[in-house]
Amino acid sequence: MNVGVLLAAGKGERMGSPVPKQFLEIGGKMLFEYPLKAFLESDAIDAVLVVTLKGWLGTVKEKVRSPKVVDVVEGGKTRSESVRRALEYLEKMRPEYVVLHDAARPFLRKETLERVLSEAKRTGAATAALKSVDTMVWKTESSLRYVPRDGMYRIQTPQAFSFELLKRAHAEGGDWNDDTEPVQALGVEVTLVEGDPFCFKVTYEEDLLLVEMLAKEWR
Amino acid sequence: MNVGVLLAAGKGERMGSPVPKQFLEIGGKMLFEYPLKAFLESDAIDAVLVVTLKGWLGTVKEKVRSPKVVDVVEGGKTRSESVRRALEYLEKMRPEYVVLHDAARPFLRKETLERVLSEAKRTGAATAALKSVDTMVWKTESSLRYVPRDGMYRIQTPQAFSFELLKRAHAEGGDWNDDTEPVQALGVEVTLVEGDPFCFKVTYEEDLLLVEMLAKEWR
Repeated sequence: MNVGVLLAAGKGERMGSPVPKQFLEIGGKMLFEYPLKAFLESDAIDAVLVVTLKGWLGTVKEKVRSPKVVDVVEGGKTRSESVRRALEYLEKMRPEYVVLHDAARPFLRKETLERVLSEAKRTGAATAALKSVDTMVWKTESSLRYVPRDGMYRIQTPQAFSFELLKRAHAEGGDWNDDTEPVQALGVEVTLVEGDPFCFKVTYEEDLLLVEMLAKEWR
Repeated sequence: MNVGVLLAAGKGERMGSPVPKQFLEIGGKMLFEYPLKAFLESDAIDAVLVVTLKGWLGTVKEKVRSPKVVDVVEGGKTRSESVRRALEYLEKMRPEYVVLHDAARPFLRKETLERVLSEAKRTGAATAALKSVDTMVWKTESSLRYVPRDGMYRIQTPQAFSFELLKRAHAEGGDWNDDTEPVQALGVEVTLVEGDPFCFKVTYEEDLLLVEMLAKEWR
């Protein structure tokens, strides 16, 4: 059994909006509903668990009416805590693989999540990632430090792992921006799978116009 | 006098298309025509120089019929060589400021280029940049090295410089992915200006669907 976990428990404090970004309504749908649709439509995903903010549990449950969604549960204070809550919940289901996706990346394609899952089945751990094409700098107080671009990747979600591996990675607690980092800390190699330029993370208010335009064209 | 330089001399070898990406026709226009429009419409820009590939000089000249475009010239083998050809051409015009933009970033807004130019007028050197929101990794043969995200920026174009400063930065030759790097090597601080998520670089074939969708909505 493969379970999709939709992480929709972020507060989105960089957005400057009172409504967390995953609940912004754009193109007639809340943003979290876009990637949810990809999970629901994929035959590779047997069940979906949604992790969200306490105050939004009711709203999300109302929007999510597919029997494929096994539950909507409350997340933790950090992304990693939310992942651990999902893992605890899934304990009784004992899935073979879990596919995690951030609801702040609305334009998820079914093909991308299936590509990542299928690679994780081969190697145990995989993530969508894109080669970095921009010049990257670290800004210090007085200067810019240029970071070599070769071999640099931007990690996206979806990320897929064997359930047992992800549990081990989270056994000691800790906080990370994604789940490949604690998995790799176990000495496990994480495979990078071709990501998708559509699957960008909505972070700032400036991103919303882009989301609006794409929502119009997104089937 | 402020001159806009549109760099359209790249071969786009990562695209896998026989036609360099700036000449792909999407939404009834070649990609280089999108940012050109922003240059033409901005009152802050007095003249525009287009640098392009030898084999495409005729096509570009045909498309570019505005008297604001002073010329279409042949670029060099590398991005930096193309910039130096532009600087040589501009010598006789002696502009105060130049605004450089990569034609591979089609969705340039007039407001962005004006923001960058206006900051360069204050400090001498400015570039559009976006905070990095994805987890970044360097991929080595056997592992991923996680790069701290705090303080990390993705450098975009437009980039604006005082003409004299940019000339000094290029006086000794050299090749860079952008023009802030040789400017900073002179000990000059480069200001980062809020970039634009629309202003991404078209690099891979996978980016084209995104371009097609946006072109439909782009005014």
